[in-house]
Amino acid sequence: MFITRIRPRVSETDGVGHINNTTIPVWFEAGRHEIFQLFMPDLSFKDWNLVIVHMSVDFVKETFYGRDVEIRTWIRRIGNSSLEIGEALYQDGEVRARGRSTYVYFSQRERRAQPIPPDIRRALAPHVQADPDG
Amino acid sequence: MFITRIRPRVSETDGVGHINNTTIPVWFEAGRHEIFQLFMPDLSFKDWNLVIVHMSVDFVKETFYGRDVEIRTWIRRIGNSSLEIGEALYQDGEVRARGRSTYVYFSQRERRAQPIPPDIRRALAPHVQADPDG
Amino acid sequence: MFITRIRPRVSETDGVGHINNTTIPVWFEAGRHEIFQLFMPDLSFKDWNLVIVHMSVDFVKETFYGRDVEIRTWIRRIGNSSLEIGEALYQDGEVRARGRSTYVYFSQRERRAQPIPPDIRRALAPHVQADPDG
Amino acid sequence: MFITRIRPRVSETDGVGHINNTTIPVWFEAGRHEIFQLFMPDLSFKDWNLVIVHMSVDFVKETFYGRDVEIRTWIRRIGNSSLEIGEALYQDGEVRARGRSTYVYFSQRERRAQPIPPDIRRALAPHVQADPDG
Repeated sequence: MFITRIRPRVSETDGVGHINNTTIPVWFEAGRHEIFQLFMPDLSFKDWNLVIVHMSVDFVKETFYGRDVEIRTWIRRIGNSSLEIGEALYQDGEVRARGRSTYVYFSQRERRAQPIPPDIRRALAPHVQADPDG
Repeated sequence: MFITRIRPRVSETDGVGHINNTTIPVWFEAGRHEIFQLFMPDLSFKDWNLVIVHMSVDFVKETFYGRDVEIRTWIRRIGNSSLEIGEALYQDGEVRARGRSTYVYFSQRERRAQPIPPDIRRALAPHVQADPDG
Repeated sequence: MFITRIRPRVSETDGVGHINNTTIPVWFEAGRHEIFQLFMPDLSFKDWNLVIVHMSVDFVKETFYGRDVEIRTWIRRIGNSSLEIGEALYQDGEVRARGRSTYVYFSQRERRAQPIPPDIRRALAPHVQADPDG
Repeated sequence: MFITRIRPRVSETDGVGHINNTTIPVWFEAGRHEIFQLFMPDLSFKDWNLVIVHMSVDFVKETFYGRDVEIRTWIRRIGNSSLEIGEALYQDGEVRARGRSTYVYFSQRERRAQPIPPDIRRALAPHVQADPDG
């Protein structure tokens, strides 16, 4: 499980007084950093080979400015050319949001999905786990 | 169906060269403006009575900087205290992303969900429709 | 003078209850769209030839969610390889923020500033004006 | 000097391939966290007493996705009711952007600027310093 610690920013809140809901996908994407690195070790955009095809978020509780949050990120399933990621946002030890995202391994040159190569598959394998919290 | 025209911004793209995936929930939220107004006619944050509990996005095709996009927003279902919204992003006449979001009508004072009042329910009704495109 | 009409988004406000200060540079950049187009008619990132070197914003009054704003953008001065832009944000007929930005015409291939070519200079000229409001 | 370490996010880049210029004010605001805390120890929005009146940024070099950045924040001057802040963005040991911002101590209740109280003034004093790098 990858752990990313984030300090909420004033600019990430909204007039209702909490973290705006559109900030959560930004944080979840930030939490996928190490996964991106497994696919593109130098994180270069010109070799970028992941395309997001789906994301969903369940908002469990409000998240507040003023206390750090923790993004937990894990791999739910490795398909032939796709990758399912699970993610959760914690603040003060409580889950605030849960997310799922699906990426496809994609060749920019051939403009289509490709099977995930064996070496990346091996690097991903230790991070596969069932969703926590039952 | 509510139509919101948006001009993509440079700051909404990313290094891969397209609109970043985290921009889409921002645009979909922008497309809910008229729905927010049906619940809070003066759009005042201190009377805000909608809480988002779920969002999902299917990314169909890349969206590009340089051409305006159109956000289409409709109501899928009105529950007792919840509201299901459907949304789609079009560019150049083609769907690029589809979204769904669920809000709960919420009393800030009582800190809990409330039945959607009859007058708001009547105002919402004409905007209920089946998902387009089959 | 270029006029860009923008509908403020919930995600652009902050917990204090107004539009967050970091949203203003985003809107001012959006207001430079037609200027970008004079430099890069097809707005393609791979031919992008403008690099920002300076920006400043004076915040005059708060800007609110719920009413559209107008961004006014003009050219203050065309230098040899640089361009000075003036900008102002209006809401309800009142100025809320004033900005200035400076760009340099830049060759990505040669990795250095270049004189602005005569044809772009001619296209920019009609948009040069003194700062309004004295 | 306050040091804030930030991991750049994909969503903070733009199509040109670097960190978008509008991200820098977001990071600089994030770097003012400890200063905000000196004014509002519990960081509560309902007691927020700082209003930004000016910001400027000089962009020295491009900032890249893939390596952490460091925001350095210091106090340049404490006025009667205003505060001048200096800030710099470093990546790979090199300055990439320099900023300045000015805040006014503001009473939300009285809707006007107030003298900065002696206790806050004392807490700020140790953080006043000349701009580094000459």
